[in-house]
Amino acid sequence: MSEKLWSGRFAKKPHKLAEEFTASISFDRRLGLYDIEGSLAHARMLGYCGIVPKKEAQTICRGLKQIRNELASDQFEFRVEDEDIHLNIERRLTEIIGPTAGKLHTARSRNDQVALATRLYLRDETQAVLKCLGTLEAAIVGLADQNIDVVMPGFTHLQHAQPVLTAHHLMAYYEMFARDEDRFSACLKSIDVMPLGSAALAGTTFPIDRKFVAEELGFSRISANSMDAVSDRDYQLEFLFASALCMTHLSRLCGELILWSSSEFGFVSIGEEFTTGSSIMPQKRNPDVAEIARGKAGRVYGNLLSLLTTLKGLPLTYHSDLQEDKPALFDTTDTVLASLRVIAAMLPTVKFHPDRTRAACDVGFMTATDLADALARKGVPFRDAHGIVGKLVAVAEKKGCRLEELSRNDLKSVTSKLASADLKALSPEAAIAARNLPGGTAKPQVRKAIRAAKKKLRSKKPAG
Amino acid sequence: MSEKLWSGRFAKKPHKLAEEFTASISFDRRLGLYDIEGSLAHARMLGYCGIVPKKEAQTICRGLKQIRNELASDQFEFRVEDEDIHLNIERRLTEIIGPTAGKLHTARSRNDQVALATRLYLRDETQAVLKCLGTLEAAIVGLADQNIDVVMPGFTHLQHAQPVLTAHHLMAYYEMFARDEDRFSACLKSIDVMPLGSAALAGTTFPIDRKFVAEELGFSRISANSMDAVSDRDYQLEFLFASALCMTHLSRLCGELILWSSSEFGFVSIGEEFTTGSSIMPQKRNPDVAEIARGKAGRVYGNLLSLLTTLKGLPLTYHSDLQEDKPALFDTTDTVLASLRVIAAMLPTVKFHPDRTRAACDVGFMTATDLADALARKGVPFRDAHGIVGKLVAVAEKKGCRLEELSRNDLKSVTSKLASADLKALSPEAAIAARNLPGGTAKPQVRKAIRAAKKKLRSKKPAG
Amino acid sequence: MSEKLWSGRFAKKPHKLAEEFTASISFDRRLGLYDIEGSLAHARMLGYCGIVPKKEAQTICRGLKQIRNELASDQFEFRVEDEDIHLNIERRLTEIIGPTAGKLHTARSRNDQVALATRLYLRDETQAVLKCLGTLEAAIVGLADQNIDVVMPGFTHLQHAQPVLTAHHLMAYYEMFARDEDRFSACLKSIDVMPLGSAALAGTTFPIDRKFVAEELGFSRISANSMDAVSDRDYQLEFLFASALCMTHLSRLCGELILWSSSEFGFVSIGEEFTTGSSIMPQKRNPDVAEIARGKAGRVYGNLLSLLTTLKGLPLTYHSDLQEDKPALFDTTDTVLASLRVIAAMLPTVKFHPDRTRAACDVGFMTATDLADALARKGVPFRDAHGIVGKLVAVAEKKGCRLEELSRNDLKSVTSKLASADLKALSPEAAIAARNLPGGTAKPQVRKAIRAAKKKLRSKKPAG
Amino acid sequence: MSEKLWSGRFAKKPHKLAEEFTASISFDRRLGLYDIEGSLAHARMLGYCGIVPKKEAQTICRGLKQIRNELASDQFEFRVEDEDIHLNIERRLTEIIGPTAGKLHTARSRNDQVALATRLYLRDETQAVLKCLGTLEAAIVGLADQNIDVVMPGFTHLQHAQPVLTAHHLMAYYEMFARDEDRFSACLKSIDVMPLGSAALAGTTFPIDRKFVAEELGFSRISANSMDAVSDRDYQLEFLFASALCMTHLSRLCGELILWSSSEFGFVSIGEEFTTGSSIMPQKRNPDVAEIARGKAGRVYGNLLSLLTTLKGLPLTYHSDLQEDKPALFDTTDTVLASLRVIAAMLPTVKFHPDRTRAACDVGFMTATDLADALARKGVPFRDAHGIVGKLVAVAEKKGCRLEELSRNDLKSVTSKLASADLKALSPEAAIAARNLPGGTAKPQVRKAIRAAKKKLRSKKPAG
Repeated sequence: MSEKLWSGRFAKKPHKLAEEFTASISFDRRLGLYDIEGSLAHARMLGYCGIVPKKEAQTICRGLKQIRNELASDQFEFRVEDEDIHLNIERRLTEIIGPTAGKLHTARSRNDQVALATRLYLRDETQAVLKCLGTLEAAIVGLADQNIDVVMPGFTHLQHAQPVLTAHHLMAYYEMFARDEDRFSACLKSIDVMPLGSAALAGTTFPIDRKFVAEELGFSRISANSMDAVSDRDYQLEFLFASALCMTHLSRLCGELILWSSSEFGFVSIGEEFTTGSSIMPQKRNPDVAEIARGKAGRVYGNLLSLLTTLKGLPLTYHSDLQEDKPALFDTTDTVLASLRVIAAMLPTVKFHPDRTRAACDVGFMTATDLADALARKGVPFRDAHGIVGKLVAVAEKKGCRLEELSRNDLKSVTSKLASADLKALSPEAAIAARNLPGGTAKPQVRKAIRAAKKKLRSKKPAG
Repeated sequence: MSEKLWSGRFAKKPHKLAEEFTASISFDRRLGLYDIEGSLAHARMLGYCGIVPKKEAQTICRGLKQIRNELASDQFEFRVEDEDIHLNIERRLTEIIGPTAGKLHTARSRNDQVALATRLYLRDETQAVLKCLGTLEAAIVGLADQNIDVVMPGFTHLQHAQPVLTAHHLMAYYEMFARDEDRFSACLKSIDVMPLGSAALAGTTFPIDRKFVAEELGFSRISANSMDAVSDRDYQLEFLFASALCMTHLSRLCGELILWSSSEFGFVSIGEEFTTGSSIMPQKRNPDVAEIARGKAGRVYGNLLSLLTTLKGLPLTYHSDLQEDKPALFDTTDTVLASLRVIAAMLPTVKFHPDRTRAACDVGFMTATDLADALARKGVPFRDAHGIVGKLVAVAEKKGCRLEELSRNDLKSVTSKLASADLKALSPEAAIAARNLPGGTAKPQVRKAIRAAKKKLRSKKPAG
Repeated sequence: MSEKLWSGRFAKKPHKLAEEFTASISFDRRLGLYDIEGSLAHARMLGYCGIVPKKEAQTICRGLKQIRNELASDQFEFRVEDEDIHLNIERRLTEIIGPTAGKLHTARSRNDQVALATRLYLRDETQAVLKCLGTLEAAIVGLADQNIDVVMPGFTHLQHAQPVLTAHHLMAYYEMFARDEDRFSACLKSIDVMPLGSAALAGTTFPIDRKFVAEELGFSRISANSMDAVSDRDYQLEFLFASALCMTHLSRLCGELILWSSSEFGFVSIGEEFTTGSSIMPQKRNPDVAEIARGKAGRVYGNLLSLLTTLKGLPLTYHSDLQEDKPALFDTTDTVLASLRVIAAMLPTVKFHPDRTRAACDVGFMTATDLADALARKGVPFRDAHGIVGKLVAVAEKKGCRLEELSRNDLKSVTSKLASADLKALSPEAAIAARNLPGGTAKPQVRKAIRAAKKKLRSKKPAG
Repeated sequence: MSEKLWSGRFAKKPHKLAEEFTASISFDRRLGLYDIEGSLAHARMLGYCGIVPKKEAQTICRGLKQIRNELASDQFEFRVEDEDIHLNIERRLTEIIGPTAGKLHTARSRNDQVALATRLYLRDETQAVLKCLGTLEAAIVGLADQNIDVVMPGFTHLQHAQPVLTAHHLMAYYEMFARDEDRFSACLKSIDVMPLGSAALAGTTFPIDRKFVAEELGFSRISANSMDAVSDRDYQLEFLFASALCMTHLSRLCGELILWSSSEFGFVSIGEEFTTGSSIMPQKRNPDVAEIARGKAGRVYGNLLSLLTTLKGLPLTYHSDLQEDKPALFDTTDTVLASLRVIAAMLPTVKFHPDRTRAACDVGFMTATDLADALARKGVPFRDAHGIVGKLVAVAEKKGCRLEELSRNDLKSVTSKLASADLKALSPEAAIAARNLPGGTAKPQVRKAIRAAKKKLRSKKPAG
């Protein structure tokens, strides 16, 4: 039975190298269960519409279910000479139910069959990503909540800028991942188009009921143009892009955790069970997990660009170039899911060291803006205030003291507009409390943000 | 006045090379009008909230409007030593209204100011892209409508597969660009967040009214986290991705037009006014416009990758690396708009040559599937039918005739299930007509698709 | 024995998810034999230098050789909890020879060990690529030689430009792949640096002999800076880039073969054993192999960008992000080798159809330049000549005739400088013969190029 | 004179949008002087070979030189309707010397003309890059030399690993940029191919002397295949890749400088003249230059990808897609040159703070490996030694002391193999001195590396 299904007109067998090069069974085998799901719906429809006798349709379904069991229990034998998962299954179906199996391919082509299986696959994976994102967001919000009183330097240019609540910093990541969620949800909508009936490219000649199949499979729309349906990869690219952006956010979070667990920063410790040791240096504890997650961002970028490039300039409709979509897609779903999962598990083990973060706040004149603001409140144009405070910072730098510790004479040497009293408001805590506007770092605002996030996360949890 | 606005604490002037390297005025000048729009709203709010005396706020607004005029009439003098567009405008404002200008920067930082101006800019550009997309879609639908009777080969693997209506092929592109429209519309939603009030990163200490500013500027949301607000580039990446995908579609359309205008295909002629000649070959008419549009896809991919890479692993919040977002963004808006515009203008000049496309349909046994379908209708399992027809094709190939031209004996030599009558339905026209299901290439279906598209396009046109 | 080798100081076991996420054994197992090769050299050196007793060094070598056999015969048991291939081998060595195994890690760290194994691996793969490239070049030259008399249109802008010899067209690809060869050869030089002795990052404290190891392993240089040695990925990126460019060339060649095997072009047939059929269309012969090779170019671009991105902005020295280099590298070597091999096997099956290619030469006024050249030879400035011929082309186009078929009156109506005799030289054959300069398409030149290529290819073949 | 040079056969003028879209004059104007250089050599050859009367060739050269002056003094008027720089110059030449100008285009096409100008351009730019690289390397070596006694932590995973000399760390970058130099030098070889004579794609019919032109222009080779010569972009891609890798190295160096100038690290101060201030925070000193250089890496990656993508699957020979090579190329040369220059100028202003770097060495048990090595020297298998030291580190960690400070009892509680004397060798200085092997961090080795680098840099300086 090693003859190709499509070999009717061919005089020569495929060259061994060609067979290996074109076979996709090594990777598309993971579409197996989705292919069967699609075939079951197609077979039922063929029977329902009388295109294939009902009895035969039932026989086909029975055979498919047996294969489903074989796949699920790892007993299915994949064969390279059967090219891809679809022909592997078809061949097996023939073994089980005989020539009736050949009727399953009525009104269908591999082109629309692959399109369907891939959409079913990606629908599941996207839902899994959404679930993981929810868990990650909950972990972030939890960590923020737990560290609501921890004060740390806020950075711009990796320089101390203004003090912030650690919880505020963490909630910035919540915002990013919440946007990722929106993007993956949008993917679900793009995926939600049932392509079967497009056949090879022009539609089928059989009186099929496309909506029947769509309903069977839980799709709310059917594709509007058969040629587009077999060559459309937009929904995959959307997923790859959403993944690339999500990994970007993850890379930033992980980058900070790596930075913060350096001796120099010492802001956090990552749970030992998420670090690894060194083969030569017995003292090391390496933030391996965070590093690898950061590194994997590049991999997903590569996958995105790979598919974009593959599509560029390609005429309609199907080309085998498009077969290359799957390795990129599978690698991306695996990468994103694994990364989200492990970081979501790691975050609750992250311990902040408030002594270190608070001590850092005394370095770098981080409340200089507040002093400038104070001057501005007295009517000094902010630009002039900025200049005055710049000079005071230079004085404090020279003296090696904090702004709060400047003497009356120090002040006078630069400006007459400031009294020692003005320096009292310059503690990090005061600076944080003063930023009490929506989106600001003052505790009431951060609490509000945490509450809102928790509520949103709860609302998404399925009941029961 | 060549001193830096932030130089209060600095002992040395910037190095000439550093000044040139860090200055962004060469490209961010195109944010000028958006910066002023944002500043006007900010100034009004400062006055409204009593943070700056109303009178002074009005003075500021007056000065800003004068600068707006100077910018609009190309009379504004840009200076590299003022770094960027924002400081250029601030400097000019000081020249016009004196030290009061310094009050405009109350409760604001360059970080949130840049974020705002970029969002205002991209909102406009995205709307322009949407408009161009609408025009392009209308051109496609128009071309489809006009060629509703043209029959051509449908291709897979660049091989003749099954005959289709040219209009059906064109409408596949309509589907792609309609999806692009959805993506750019989603961009508008992501852009629609007002960041002012985030100040440098932690929020401002002044009692500002963020919603006032949002309303003034037509935003429906304000940013929820100040640290996220100054480092968020998601909305830009979404735009870059939507652009990359849109250019991919354009590259496919242009690739086909280039192919079809080759001598060998001869399916279309592109209007002379959209082709160019050769400096050495007097006979040439080159589809230059289509080629360049196709080539520009790579450019936009590059821009997308560039920003993704820039963001990867970057700690919060603002870093000057992020300044590099703008060249990529500006180049992309220019590229997408120019490409959409010129192709939308070119499409109506494209003439199909029905004689060539119809003649091509007689090559390649394109109705073999229909013959297999006929067998399947007689109860032959499709797989067996496929094999039988494969053999008939081999016979016809050997005889150098079309399938319709096979003799009774030819048929008999392969199968007893087919009679000469079955060959009658094998014309391209019959094959097209037979695919009369939603999404199929039969004329009623294509007409329906065209009507639906026209209706949708009309509904988007602004009244009046 | 499931305890980690580095766990001395750790109180907690790794989290299950972390263990899976950080383990590289699933992909780096293919470094196994290279790791052993490196370890053998290291062990010998340790013995030679008296750092480890000679006897023990021999025991270690014996154990390593046993593992080599186990690996070669697929009897080695890989364990995820041993993280990577290096620790898997070390663990197994301990099982075989007991605690002496622990001495192998003297004066070595995983960082320089991995660097070494990867270089050994890539040296082999690069040599394999070079061999495949040679075979591909030979196939191209053979095809050119075989088709030395076939005349075809030369294209610019996919429009007929000037006639060329098919062999000339093919030899353009020879040039590209010859350049690829140069680049891969340069890779070999970059790979040829022995990193062992760098230890974790700072060098070892043991009195090792680095040159001994280098000689054992056939390296001609040792790394000059230990910190660079453990974080350097330049040689990998060079390989990835050389691969990306090679795949670009392959994509162009395959793109043309796909185009030329379309019905419309009909210039070539690809051997049936390198085409595939369709599951629905019995008549199809799809250039699957060429399409997939073209599609895979994008994949290699993705791998290149992935590693570039991973490295960007990474501080010295080793980070686990770098572990992500291997999947990209392995996928690239596999892709390039498989693609080169299959295309080299396919090319000899490609048949040109000289009737089709020659007939195509009569379309498109491809000898117009020659007519302009003739005018230029009579002293007409080329620009004017170009204009005159442009008008003649317009006349011929209107009449529907070839340039050679223009009448005396036709000529006169445009210019007095041309006589009917001038039209005689306008056959494609004459045009080709006239381009008899180095690099030109005249047969003597193409023959010369083929001879030179053959000579070069022969010179590279290893004797015997 | 607004008519197109190639318009002979065209009935319609170009559409305004098409003209703008296809014109490249906005960017290729910077090829002006190179185009003239190439044209001068071509004109001389035409005269020398008697293809154009010598006198006329001289007239052409005179005209070209006048245009060269106009370009050099910014008096040349560029016109969009003349499409590109080449036609702009040709038009101007006609204005200056009349119809004889038309003879310059004899035996030449824009295709080979552009190829030549681009190679001349890139040869110059590559030489400029090599010069800048030399300056940067010298700056690195200088900084290393100056800080030869500064001890700092060596990092892996951003964790303290083993102490190193700062000079050793810096010299790792020297190695990277030295490799970049090799790559850019290889680019020069790839560029060194003279394409003129290839004409449009098939070679010219005139008896030209290609070697004459090559010698005039300082090329050592002429292109071997005309079709390859007009579509080859390999040399550009090599340059883009060499640039991408060079920017990667720069991004790593800058990333470390940014990190090291954080308050937490405090290892270095960057010269004030290479930092900038904040518009809102008077105390800030931002490493702006380093950040922007790091950010620009992504931009060059984008350019590399862009050209790769543009070429993918493109049939031979010239397509206007290829016109898109120039923006990517020009942007890259500008980016690389500016980045190298500014960082080379910045490095000498970088001050290390030896107190901070040395103090950091007392944190993190960085000499644990040395203790394990000591055990290994006593015959303990390294793996066991590693375990023992791991336990000692745990003890020290608990006690909050350094390894050197462990008591005899502490030692005994873990192992009997270590005496207090063994702890004496655990200072960072001793650890550094112990790594005295080629490539190691011991001072003699680093000095040797510095000397070698200086010698190599001197040898490259042009005499006089």
